[in-house]
Amino acid sequence: MRRKKTMTKVIYVINPNSLAAVTQRLDQALEAMRSPNGPLIRCITLEDGPPGVQTQQDVDRAAYLVGAQIVACEQEARSQGDVAAAFVLACFSDSGLFHARERTRAPVFGIAESGFLTAMSRGLKVGVISILSSSIPRHLRYFASMMVTGRLAGDLAIGMGVEALESNAGACERLVETGRQLIEKHGADVLLLGCAGMTPFREPLERELAVPVVDPTIAAVAMALGTI
Amino acid sequence: MRRKKTMTKVIYVINPNSLAAVTQRLDQALEAMRSPNGPLIRCITLEDGPPGVQTQQDVDRAAYLVGAQIVACEQEARSQGDVAAAFVLACFSDSGLFHARERTRAPVFGIAESGFLTAMSRGLKVGVISILSSSIPRHLRYFASMMVTGRLAGDLAIGMGVEALESNAGACERLVETGRQLIEKHGADVLLLGCAGMTPFREPLERELAVPVVDPTIAAVAMALGTI
Amino acid sequence: MRRKKTMTKVIYVINPNSLAAVTQRLDQALEAMRSPNGPLIRCITLEDGPPGVQTQQDVDRAAYLVGAQIVACEQEARSQGDVAAAFVLACFSDSGLFHARERTRAPVFGIAESGFLTAMSRGLKVGVISILSSSIPRHLRYFASMMVTGRLAGDLAIGMGVEALESNAGACERLVETGRQLIEKHGADVLLLGCAGMTPFREPLERELAVPVVDPTIAAVAMALGTI
Amino acid sequence: MRRKKTMTKVIYVINPNSLAAVTQRLDQALEAMRSPNGPLIRCITLEDGPPGVQTQQDVDRAAYLVGAQIVACEQEARSQGDVAAAFVLACFSDSGLFHARERTRAPVFGIAESGFLTAMSRGLKVGVISILSSSIPRHLRYFASMMVTGRLAGDLAIGMGVEALESNAGACERLVETGRQLIEKHGADVLLLGCAGMTPFREPLERELAVPVVDPTIAAVAMALGTI
Amino acid sequence: MRRKKTMTKVIYVINPNSLAAVTQRLDQALEAMRSPNGPLIRCITLEDGPPGVQTQQDVDRAAYLVGAQIVACEQEARSQGDVAAAFVLACFSDSGLFHARERTRAPVFGIAESGFLTAMSRGLKVGVISILSSSIPRHLRYFASMMVTGRLAGDLAIGMGVEALESNAGACERLVETGRQLIEKHGADVLLLGCAGMTPFREPLERELAVPVVDPTIAAVAMALGTI
Amino acid sequence: MRRKKTMTKVIYVINPNSLAAVTQRLDQALEAMRSPNGPLIRCITLEDGPPGVQTQQDVDRAAYLVGAQIVACEQEARSQGDVAAAFVLACFSDSGLFHARERTRAPVFGIAESGFLTAMSRGLKVGVISILSSSIPRHLRYFASMMVTGRLAGDLAIGMGVEALESNAGACERLVETGRQLIEKHGADVLLLGCAGMTPFREPLERELAVPVVDPTIAAVAMALGTI
Repeated sequence: MRRKKTMTKVIYVINPNSLAAVTQRLDQALEAMRSPNGPLIRCITLEDGPPGVQTQQDVDRAAYLVGAQIVACEQEARSQGDVAAAFVLACFSDSGLFHARERTRAPVFGIAESGFLTAMSRGLKVGVISILSSSIPRHLRYFASMMVTGRLAGDLAIGMGVEALESNAGACERLVETGRQLIEKHGADVLLLGCAGMTPFREPLERELAVPVVDPTIAAVAMALGTI
Repeated sequence: MRRKKTMTKVIYVINPNSLAAVTQRLDQALEAMRSPNGPLIRCITLEDGPPGVQTQQDVDRAAYLVGAQIVACEQEARSQGDVAAAFVLACFSDSGLFHARERTRAPVFGIAESGFLTAMSRGLKVGVISILSSSIPRHLRYFASMMVTGRLAGDLAIGMGVEALESNAGACERLVETGRQLIEKHGADVLLLGCAGMTPFREPLERELAVPVVDPTIAAVAMALGTI
Repeated sequence: MRRKKTMTKVIYVINPNSLAAVTQRLDQALEAMRSPNGPLIRCITLEDGPPGVQTQQDVDRAAYLVGAQIVACEQEARSQGDVAAAFVLACFSDSGLFHARERTRAPVFGIAESGFLTAMSRGLKVGVISILSSSIPRHLRYFASMMVTGRLAGDLAIGMGVEALESNAGACERLVETGRQLIEKHGADVLLLGCAGMTPFREPLERELAVPVVDPTIAAVAMALGTI
Repeated sequence: MRRKKTMTKVIYVINPNSLAAVTQRLDQALEAMRSPNGPLIRCITLEDGPPGVQTQQDVDRAAYLVGAQIVACEQEARSQGDVAAAFVLACFSDSGLFHARERTRAPVFGIAESGFLTAMSRGLKVGVISILSSSIPRHLRYFASMMVTGRLAGDLAIGMGVEALESNAGACERLVETGRQLIEKHGADVLLLGCAGMTPFREPLERELAVPVVDPTIAAVAMALGTI
Repeated sequence: MRRKKTMTKVIYVINPNSLAAVTQRLDQALEAMRSPNGPLIRCITLEDGPPGVQTQQDVDRAAYLVGAQIVACEQEARSQGDVAAAFVLACFSDSGLFHARERTRAPVFGIAESGFLTAMSRGLKVGVISILSSSIPRHLRYFASMMVTGRLAGDLAIGMGVEALESNAGACERLVETGRQLIEKHGADVLLLGCAGMTPFREPLERELAVPVVDPTIAAVAMALGTI
Repeated sequence: MRRKKTMTKVIYVINPNSLAAVTQRLDQALEAMRSPNGPLIRCITLEDGPPGVQTQQDVDRAAYLVGAQIVACEQEARSQGDVAAAFVLACFSDSGLFHARERTRAPVFGIAESGFLTAMSRGLKVGVISILSSSIPRHLRYFASMMVTGRLAGDLAIGMGVEALESNAGACERLVETGRQLIEKHGADVLLLGCAGMTPFREPLERELAVPVVDPTIAAVAMALGTI
């Protein structure tokens, strides 16, 4: 009982691709969610994961591997006298969400799910800005499985890879353009960023387009904090 | 620019009934959501509101009055060099949610909406535990307006007023019984407390019934924190 | 028993704004619904209501006030030996519909609800012609709460205030243009006038556009007559 | 133009079975809907129709034959200097509704459609009381085609033929029992009579069960009156 | 028992119009579905059917007549020592599907139903290519009655009669053009041919448009084979 | 061109678990679907798959591995001068369906999808008989992703492992009992076997319960045959 009080609670944010640089950016993006008396927020790389989650093959590979990662995180926490209080899967395909939930009793949040649900509290019709058009049918099936299709304005891709997104000076323009199309042609009154790596663009987009813009990772971590 | 940095952000949690004691309990229930470097969380009583929000008349009265309260909160914040960063309407009828959103540019969260959306991230079928059966058709219309009816397992009332809830030793038993019915007969795999005043029962219910139990006020404040 | 036979039945049509001129036009528009042996149809102004119901604040104010009006109408009827047999709320936001239903045992009809339901019997896809675009999200939430979104072709605003509607020679052209867009771009095969004050335009629109055009106030009064 | 003024408008109510006695009872049931300055309401027997519409074969036979009947009614009206202003198909299978609409420019109302829509204005969840359980899948498909399934509480049969309904002293008890089951077990808060021949039972049921009870023929004629 | 082994199973494909030439083409189109040890596939003309099923009147006439045809087929089979193992109604309005099911215990497949369901296994959003635009509301009501509207991308007509379809050299171009519009503007990723007579165009369309193209008659016969 | 004629078309039926005995039974169950002039039907074991697909971990593992299997099958076919004309994934979780579709241009059928769609052509409300109750939420999410939830009567587990199913004399009784509950309490009018290994029970169940019973593997192979 006494030990319980001093155990540190940890929210594990799992980057399901193998790129440590992506995990590092994730870590920085979540800095604002940390507080002195709040839980630790640890960002983890799925080391044997795919180098990026773009195809269905990547999704299914990450989904399978994430289970062992969940178990490893719980063990790590325990070995340090901490407790894995919640998990966030930081990939917009929510790769392995139900596998993860099967492997731990702690709550697990997928960023697509948390992001969409949070967007539903900020507007009536959610416009999703995706990276690649090939992911859109997967998103649509997923939103349907959540039974929230009625709240989707549309899902449009910027047609720009994750790398291009990070380096390319034109990324923000492309995001604004896509967001504007979702608003003007599809009736979106709230936008959802369809990728874990778009956090830095949230504020400029919101300012430019004058509708709420939801970052899915922030949304998932906020929901995770609410369970602690 | 300099001034912006020192402005304190405030989340206003508005209790839409006139009972200061209710507001006080709300304030205590939210203690765990506060952090040294986080926003202030101020609980406010809608002083000319109804003594409780039970009938549709109460809902519509609170809905009308909440607009002026929003404006008053923003003025109070400004007068103290703070900023009203978000609002939470702490009544499960989300009384005045759209009126409030019309009166401020800050995000406004209704606890029924936030609670239901958060429950959707913890299970497939949401069981709602309400206070009075007369509120249930109103809830059903509201969930329909959110287009989430497909995710509702059922909405059952404990048939016990707010006061009884607080004083009565039998309240927890009644909540457990109602929760169990939602799980066993209606297929709920997550429960949502349908009242701002049930926070103290969340943990015992979760322990007893072995499914996630979502407190709507905590859920709304967590979502509000995610926007800051 | 004898007394019952001689009691006059009254359908109260409540204009939830404070403008007597609007009530008067309503009264004229309903002339065709009156018959020698039918119920009285009395049009009433919500005197302390907003001067027009355009914002959510107006909606919530009218919603709150309409309850007392219902009670007052019932008393008026009783004091004259009549009976308030049904109520119609003549504002396309159906402001206070559920409050009103809580205050009387007589049936209460909202014109948006009655209008949409009636339109559903005249075509597959309903196109709604609204006054202001700011009301459209409110309409969409309301149609969703009615679970009839699947039957909505679209909701477009003429972007012309109620006053402009009445005075402006261009109103009919604007209505025809908006109706045509709903038919040609959104697939509407029936149109619903989204305002209590568009009655005079129903016939010209129907003639011009060759699809049924439903006036919501007429629809609601017809439904009210069906209960008597 | 002068002639138009003196033309009498007629609402044709077509009984799609061949039993003149049924038509006669229909005629009596609609007496209250007539008014001195209103349209004529003429009840017509589909003479070569099936002796009752119970099987799908009956439905499809009536559906086919109703087209010629529509044309015949229009000719009859014209030959007498009247105008067929609206049609009501008085069979709860809405047999031939779309065929009829194809044959005339006057509005055509099916009693199942009008009845269900009207019930939607009187409660949230509609309980349908049918004659035979074999019709229920047909009703369910029809309500689905109307996209109103979300508003259906349930559809239960009294398991009693039309004839039994008319002669049997136990019919009212059976109706009350079925209605009570719809309310208590299926959550109905409004009942819809699923047959053109149940009109005499509407009032006793409403009194006994304390929820609105909608007669579909009255509902359809009221909607028809609203178009004139 | 011995007799059962030697009974030939027959799938009856009923062409609900009276044109023997159409039945003959149907027969040829199904040649590829026949196999030495499989059931017989017999194509039958509904001799007193309409010369084509285009209007609702045609649909209702065919629906009524199909019942007797089902009975006649079963008798024919029995008289030859065969058994009517399944029925396919080869008209995209699924005219008489429920009537037919009432008349036989053998499974009955409608080509619109089977085609749409099969298309749902080949893509997320089904684009339907119809003959005439006047049939589209009927299709939409039917897809709604199947509760599959969420999977419909759109239904567009080529605006060309059945005869034109067969003779006209421009038919394929028109089909490609309509299919392309369904894909590019409506988001279809699978196409469904909305007519029993488009079989010869399936392969060229699939090749040209690079999405799966489903022929509804083939789909229905495949489903029928699956029951044998 | 000549070579094309002599290429044998193969339908690969992949058993996504590692048990060759299961594959063998599958092979026998599909014997009736083979015909002299039809395609080959080859049943394949996913050799490094899980020993059974019961948990989400199993599902995600099989989903990941199935991609390589698809590629291997295509190579095998090519190396023998054949062509992989279609694939069937013979596990009711449709494990890896979208991964497989990404890896081949041939059509891929999942037995849950094909089974449910086929059941929709045999009745209005589909009752699913599952093996384990822990799979039911997964099924519900999947049916929702297919947007066919409106057609689901219920999904009940027999609570008996695959092995027990095969050896246990009581399996048929348990299936009948579960099927009866789906029919009588949940309103199912067609049953779908929720497992690839229940084929031998299809006929006895259909005979006993007097509603159509759909075997999902047969349904998928029939759909596959329809594409060839």
